[in-house]
Amino acid sequence: MAKDFPTRSENYSQWYNDLVIKADLAESSAVRGCMVIKPYGYAIWEKIQSALDKMFKDTGHSNAYFPIFIPKSFFSREASHVEGFAKECAVVTHYRLKASPDGKGVVVDETARLDEELIVRPTSETIIWDTYRNWIKSYRDLPILINQWANVVRWEMRTRLFLRTTEFLWQEGHTAHSTRDEAVHEAETMLNVYADFAENWMAIPVIKGTKSPAERFAGAVETYAIEALMQDGKALQAGTSHFLGENFAKAFDVKFLNRENQLEYVWATSWGVSTRLMGALVMSHSDDNGLVLPPKLAPIQVAIVPVFKTKEQLDLISEKVIPLKKALELKGISVKYDDRDTHKPGWKFSEYEFKGVPVRITIGPRDIEQGTVEVARRDTLEKEVFQMTDIENKVINLLDQIQKNLYNKALDMRENNSHRVDDWEEFKRVLDSTGGFIYAHWDGTTETEEKIKEETKATIRVIPLDNPPEAGKCIYSGKPSSQRVIFARAY
Amino acid sequence: MAKDFPTRSENYSQWYNDLVIKADLAESSAVRGCMVIKPYGYAIWEKIQSALDKMFKDTGHSNAYFPIFIPKSFFSREASHVEGFAKECAVVTHYRLKASPDGKGVVVDETARLDEELIVRPTSETIIWDTYRNWIKSYRDLPILINQWANVVRWEMRTRLFLRTTEFLWQEGHTAHSTRDEAVHEAETMLNVYADFAENWMAIPVIKGTKSPAERFAGAVETYAIEALMQDGKALQAGTSHFLGENFAKAFDVKFLNRENQLEYVWATSWGVSTRLMGALVMSHSDDNGLVLPPKLAPIQVAIVPVFKTKEQLDLISEKVIPLKKALELKGISVKYDDRDTHKPGWKFSEYEFKGVPVRITIGPRDIEQGTVEVARRDTLEKEVFQMTDIENKVINLLDQIQKNLYNKALDMRENNSHRVDDWEEFKRVLDSTGGFIYAHWDGTTETEEKIKEETKATIRVIPLDNPPEAGKCIYSGKPSSQRVIFARAY
Repeated sequence: MAKDFPTRSENYSQWYNDLVIKADLAESSAVRGCMVIKPYGYAIWEKIQSALDKMFKDTGHSNAYFPIFIPKSFFSREASHVEGFAKECAVVTHYRLKASPDGKGVVVDETARLDEELIVRPTSETIIWDTYRNWIKSYRDLPILINQWANVVRWEMRTRLFLRTTEFLWQEGHTAHSTRDEAVHEAETMLNVYADFAENWMAIPVIKGTKSPAERFAGAVETYAIEALMQDGKALQAGTSHFLGENFAKAFDVKFLNRENQLEYVWATSWGVSTRLMGALVMSHSDDNGLVLPPKLAPIQVAIVPVFKTKEQLDLISEKVIPLKKALELKGISVKYDDRDTHKPGWKFSEYEFKGVPVRITIGPRDIEQGTVEVARRDTLEKEVFQMTDIENKVINLLDQIQKNLYNKALDMRENNSHRVDDWEEFKRVLDSTGGFIYAHWDGTTETEEKIKEETKATIRVIPLDNPPEAGKCIYSGKPSSQRVIFARAY
Repeated sequence: MAKDFPTRSENYSQWYNDLVIKADLAESSAVRGCMVIKPYGYAIWEKIQSALDKMFKDTGHSNAYFPIFIPKSFFSREASHVEGFAKECAVVTHYRLKASPDGKGVVVDETARLDEELIVRPTSETIIWDTYRNWIKSYRDLPILINQWANVVRWEMRTRLFLRTTEFLWQEGHTAHSTRDEAVHEAETMLNVYADFAENWMAIPVIKGTKSPAERFAGAVETYAIEALMQDGKALQAGTSHFLGENFAKAFDVKFLNRENQLEYVWATSWGVSTRLMGALVMSHSDDNGLVLPPKLAPIQVAIVPVFKTKEQLDLISEKVIPLKKALELKGISVKYDDRDTHKPGWKFSEYEFKGVPVRITIGPRDIEQGTVEVARRDTLEKEVFQMTDIENKVINLLDQIQKNLYNKALDMRENNSHRVDDWEEFKRVLDSTGGFIYAHWDGTTETEEKIKEETKATIRVIPLDNPPEAGKCIYSGKPSSQRVIFARAY
């Protein structure tokens, strides 16, 4: 297990890339922009999926599955939607290969050309609303509360593992409602679910807000987002929930008979998080020694390393460890007992540290005599000697402390990197030095937002929900503003 | 909830299609050959996934994720593999759309043509073995035991919901081993996992065996399969496990240093089951009244229907039902208490019967007085009055009985439709009358197998494992044969 990778301060971007690869989370594949998610990385994604899936079901949603292909013509139905996605679509044009005339390999069979090209879904609003049309006749058929776990493809020119890949995994919720209020409520509910998940599972504090019109989802009336701050002072959008109004219902002619027996268009939402969350997770907590994982999402929560010279010593240690492992597992803790004799304890210590295992327990012959174990926590790298008595509960408490500590550390980092700025030069100076969230006044126009982006690469991340009204002048145009919004450079 | 669909004896094929649609399992989509899996159908698939996933992990496998796209050239590397899949490949040729010159909709941007076309994976051996090459250096890196849950695309000309669709969901295991024996053992282990799952979860008896060379997976040295018999006397292959030899290691140059420090090719297996299992599930147990689901895979295991006229009556009933529901849920049973006043009890009875809910509990004012409930089981349609005392355990026992009964019924059906046939005319007669599994002698040649298929549409389903040797004459050619194999017409 080699650790030759740069520190965060040397090269944050390289630190991230190297860490993702060396910690066996993911790697680039032979297909441009597509990644291979390796077992250790995928195990974290499974924990994310499982927690979110339960939250979706607890809020009344069911899973379903819609086709990966979307007929090209579907895209044109919603004008801003097609504009948003047309430039990054993988297009299927043929359905057969044949032997190459030169006998070497295969070529596309030109006689097997599709009448209408199919798009590999970049998101599924169009195919889903085409389907909902047949499912919805009356108010009795509403609401429809469906989620889909799926892969999607967006042809990105610059890709980075997890953060921006051509293919990624995600979930996309698509709901249909009889009233505007109910749809808005749904979009807000799911934003809250995402925020709850980010904070309580990923230990990442997030700011909930709405996007400016320029940053809205293609086809949305309102886009809600949760925004997190990474250790390098750049923002990362960690989840979005869209109130789609009647846009897709109109595009796909989805109407229902209301209680008064009148036909109305159906109201819609969609919401999603993706494997991008894996990038947020790595960048929020990890350090120059490797990954740091919050206990609730760590595939291995406790690693137990025996220190022994002889088989007899190992047997004595195992006699203590095996019941301890079982006791922890009974409490729902995932434990790895690494009794391999092919690797030295020191090697194992570095390995589990590098892989971000929250708690490491070391036990040697002396511990056996004294009824103790050494417990190391990954977040602070502190070690402590624990009596074996009631060790399960001590470990559970420690995992809980680590989860909270990671959240608090990330929150402190964010607070220390949040700035109220009222002056344009200061705005640029902060961006170029520490970065972070900049709370500044904005005149509310897309024109100003675009100019700020051109000059500084900073964008409006969110207009926080429940933002206090505050009279001021736009940081850029000097025009009147009624509230501060959050600017940052972003992933 | 309409039930206007044909009986099995009237039109088995139509009965199946109608049932899948009317029971809200799946429907056809706007994309040719691709299905929409609806929430009720997907909930069954989730139960299948969850049970299998645990079995894979218990046998040492981890999940990972590989790209959906495969470079076209990868296919040509393994000769029989490309031959098997080239004719049914969806091909991505472009990565961008643009506004149509006539201003109506979008067209493919011809300037965004890929240098090398990408295939939407029909199966992932090629991309995975290209990846494994970088993961495997020495025997210490082996075995690799990975599974992937994914969607795949095979351009089928004739499609049927679940049984044969252009896109389907599946899992594909891909393992790498240092010895031939270990790989063969793995392929057999996974066949046993599939058989165990089919019999103990799906309540479908299966025959384990190997495929004849003509029916082998494209690229395999040996294909193992589990084969089930449907109610109409046709066979359905419910899962396959392949010993791939060194074929993919050679095609992708994957070698390892063995303990003697010599380079060797790596041995491989792959194994998969798909949403096709949903079709097998429907066809194995359902009847002319609708779906019949084995309790272990039913999304709703118990439906409770109150019979009431007044709000007061409903309140009294709910007072009993709510604790009962909780008590059952604590035991892991999924319960739906349907207290809607918008539908009559009779409507609800038909609904749950049609949807295959294993147990229905009815409770009315009289039951409240007498401390009883009426319990109806879906498999036999029998009803019985139970005292409320210890009702949870009675229900659990009943679910267990239903699970076993479904298996036994399916086994009886198979036994009654298994025939030992030694005469060619009889062979054809059986196929055209009852169908079923025909145990017959075969001379072992692909030529004979193909002629039998041409004349009768019957294929060799499996050569059963542990087949007793038996001298005989080939049913078709009259040449000597050492064992019987199983012929059938198949899905």
